[in-house]
Amino acid sequence: MTAIIDRPGARHRVVVVGAGFGGLNAARGLRRADTEVVVVDRVNHHLFQPLLYQVATAILPPGDIAPALREVLGENYRVILGEATDVDAGNRIVDVIQADGSIRKLGYDSLVVAVGSTDSYFGNDGWRQWAPPMKTLDDAVNLRGRILRAFERAAIATDEATRRREMTFAIVGAGPTGVELAGQIAAMRRRTLRGQYPELNLDDVRVVLLDALDSVLPPYTESLRDHTERKLRELGVDVRLGMKVQDVDDQGIVYAPSDGGPTERLDAATVVWAAGVRAAPLTGKLAASAGVETDKKGRLVVQEDCTVPGHPEVFVIGDTANHNDLPGVAETALQQGKYVAKAIRARLTGEKITPFRYLDLGTMATISAGDAVADVRGLHLRGLIGKVAWAVVHLAFLVGWRNRAAVLAGWAWTVGTGRRTQRVILEPVAS
Amino acid sequence: MTAIIDRPGARHRVVVVGAGFGGLNAARGLRRADTEVVVVDRVNHHLFQPLLYQVATAILPPGDIAPALREVLGENYRVILGEATDVDAGNRIVDVIQADGSIRKLGYDSLVVAVGSTDSYFGNDGWRQWAPPMKTLDDAVNLRGRILRAFERAAIATDEATRRREMTFAIVGAGPTGVELAGQIAAMRRRTLRGQYPELNLDDVRVVLLDALDSVLPPYTESLRDHTERKLRELGVDVRLGMKVQDVDDQGIVYAPSDGGPTERLDAATVVWAAGVRAAPLTGKLAASAGVETDKKGRLVVQEDCTVPGHPEVFVIGDTANHNDLPGVAETALQQGKYVAKAIRARLTGEKITPFRYLDLGTMATISAGDAVADVRGLHLRGLIGKVAWAVVHLAFLVGWRNRAAVLAGWAWTVGTGRRTQRVILEPVAS
Repeated sequence: MTAIIDRPGARHRVVVVGAGFGGLNAARGLRRADTEVVVVDRVNHHLFQPLLYQVATAILPPGDIAPALREVLGENYRVILGEATDVDAGNRIVDVIQADGSIRKLGYDSLVVAVGSTDSYFGNDGWRQWAPPMKTLDDAVNLRGRILRAFERAAIATDEATRRREMTFAIVGAGPTGVELAGQIAAMRRRTLRGQYPELNLDDVRVVLLDALDSVLPPYTESLRDHTERKLRELGVDVRLGMKVQDVDDQGIVYAPSDGGPTERLDAATVVWAAGVRAAPLTGKLAASAGVETDKKGRLVVQEDCTVPGHPEVFVIGDTANHNDLPGVAETALQQGKYVAKAIRARLTGEKITPFRYLDLGTMATISAGDAVADVRGLHLRGLIGKVAWAVVHLAFLVGWRNRAAVLAGWAWTVGTGRRTQRVILEPVAS
Repeated sequence: MTAIIDRPGARHRVVVVGAGFGGLNAARGLRRADTEVVVVDRVNHHLFQPLLYQVATAILPPGDIAPALREVLGENYRVILGEATDVDAGNRIVDVIQADGSIRKLGYDSLVVAVGSTDSYFGNDGWRQWAPPMKTLDDAVNLRGRILRAFERAAIATDEATRRREMTFAIVGAGPTGVELAGQIAAMRRRTLRGQYPELNLDDVRVVLLDALDSVLPPYTESLRDHTERKLRELGVDVRLGMKVQDVDDQGIVYAPSDGGPTERLDAATVVWAAGVRAAPLTGKLAASAGVETDKKGRLVVQEDCTVPGHPEVFVIGDTANHNDLPGVAETALQQGKYVAKAIRARLTGEKITPFRYLDLGTMATISAGDAVADVRGLHLRGLIGKVAWAVVHLAFLVGWRNRAAVLAGWAWTVGTGRRTQRVILEPVAS
């Protein structure tokens, strides 16, 4: 198949690959610049990843956390639905496999690589089919179906072992995603599904949260980690720390203590992989093309101004970059995105710009409806005040006022009634 | 695999197959009866089919029109996620293939078959893969993805023929579903997507609505049909009546005048099949087992009290029944469902019950944001007043106050801003 050659025209072309927090903010920051901006993403929307777990647990519909890119950006941006698979840093070309299968060789004057992170199975990619990750909306909707189907399959199970396995949920990785998912499934058990499964004793539902390290939320301060762990246990989550997964199959997982010890098997019909983060593959291609190194997570080690060493026209930001080993959180990507837009604008007008400086606003993770932990520049919040802070910050970072209103209304309903409004299994049972 | 034998216990067991308008109302009507009610459905939710087209056109999220069965029914009902594949009317057993693949032989004392209708390709089942129907939430979400992807693929097309094909949408069948879909895609072209596709001239989008008959909305009165056709054309829909589809392939359709004439080809990347209705297959199995006839749409011809001739314990209702050739609309199914619950309750207490009498409240179909036609017992409404009536009736029939509020809010937003909040393609482009 002949590739489409797409060279920049007279105007300075900025290609932004990835439209998450980093890429979207880089693109938006160029709204008034004299540039042609082309945004490339594998999906047609900007995904608010922090609330993905709420799609997976039937609280929010996908559309509320995923505004269409074209709606956010508008007419002065080109959008290409496709996957960027390679970069030729010397010739300034990005290879994009487009939505129709064709290949576009997209030339650029400036390039922003914001492709984010992917999941790592530590070399055991065969585990993926039994323990999918939760990185895209498609993952979240599929997980929602798996969770709901597990309860239905438990209800019709005729032997105790099968019922037990269907009622067991294993979440690997006790970072914010794992903690949030575990808390929500525990809430389904405790509240949402009560009184609706005459066939089941919901007390038999087991939510198991594992992590190879000795603590939940490893990067947080000790008091917040302890609070989180204690609260999760109170909510009914079976927290198993210092346990490393050795194997995953269609019936469950095998794990053993991280520092050595006998293996144990956990039969679980639903396993979610929320552990192991790696930079997305395009980063490695770029690094190879530019002759620079990546760190052990595959992140490209960038200069102070977020550029690739030797290639000042290429910026790498967000989870896929290593800028002084900043954490792979939304705030980093967002700030870097804005910075990069400023840097490009400055270049075009010949102005100077200072290096990127990260303003650490802290981190937060939610545990339950009335409880979240937040570490905001040394201020430690937990419980209800933590949850309010968490809610305010997340609403602020959502794109679109309508989405903010819808998400807030969704939260109010679910917190108030315990019900989940998106309890849908899409695919009918097929005989 | 050994089947599970599930016989009724001491209490009178009512098995309800299908949880649409008919089945759900039959089940709910038995809430206070001294019965064990088992509801069987291929999906876990009650689907409000009339608004499915709004999921397909990104206005509403699936969850808002699909409350979970267990949430609606509560603790005093058994719910089985599975497909009923056969009925043994003599031994009173329904075969169910359950969500885990196992077979349950579900015995009953009373049976309510409310499995609805399926699409008919008039013997050309090979067309289905290129022209899917829109009957389930899964269909609607997939159609949404197809519509949105078509615009993205048009934006990257390099030859005019491909671009044109991607911008052409063909809807086969000008009943309410076809009319509503066509109107919405035309609205996307006219309003929603304006200013967001610099690569495209949206005026080139073609929405083609075909029907083998000479009129849109065939069962409606002439003045409403004419109004609808005129309005659709004003909105930019290319209405081609008296045209019968001869073939469907991966590039489009071939059609010819119904009363004979040369064929024409229409290249369309997105084809939707909204024509041809048949009773769902279980009905044929039941009819065979009970030794009774079905009509040419596969519907079982029932007695005045909705029962199967010779089997007073088996009720067939909704689209899948022929009760004096009543129309296959939601209201029929709903009223029959309530009636059947009363009939079963009356039987248990030895009371007599009158035959089912349908109260014809009329029919309605929407055309655009400010226009709908309604034929309410001789009162013909159109335009804005028709739309208000349409909206009120649909909200009234939705299950759940939260869903009503959410749907109304969704409508207000989309009508007010022209935006669609669920413009999500779930599956990432995969290289």
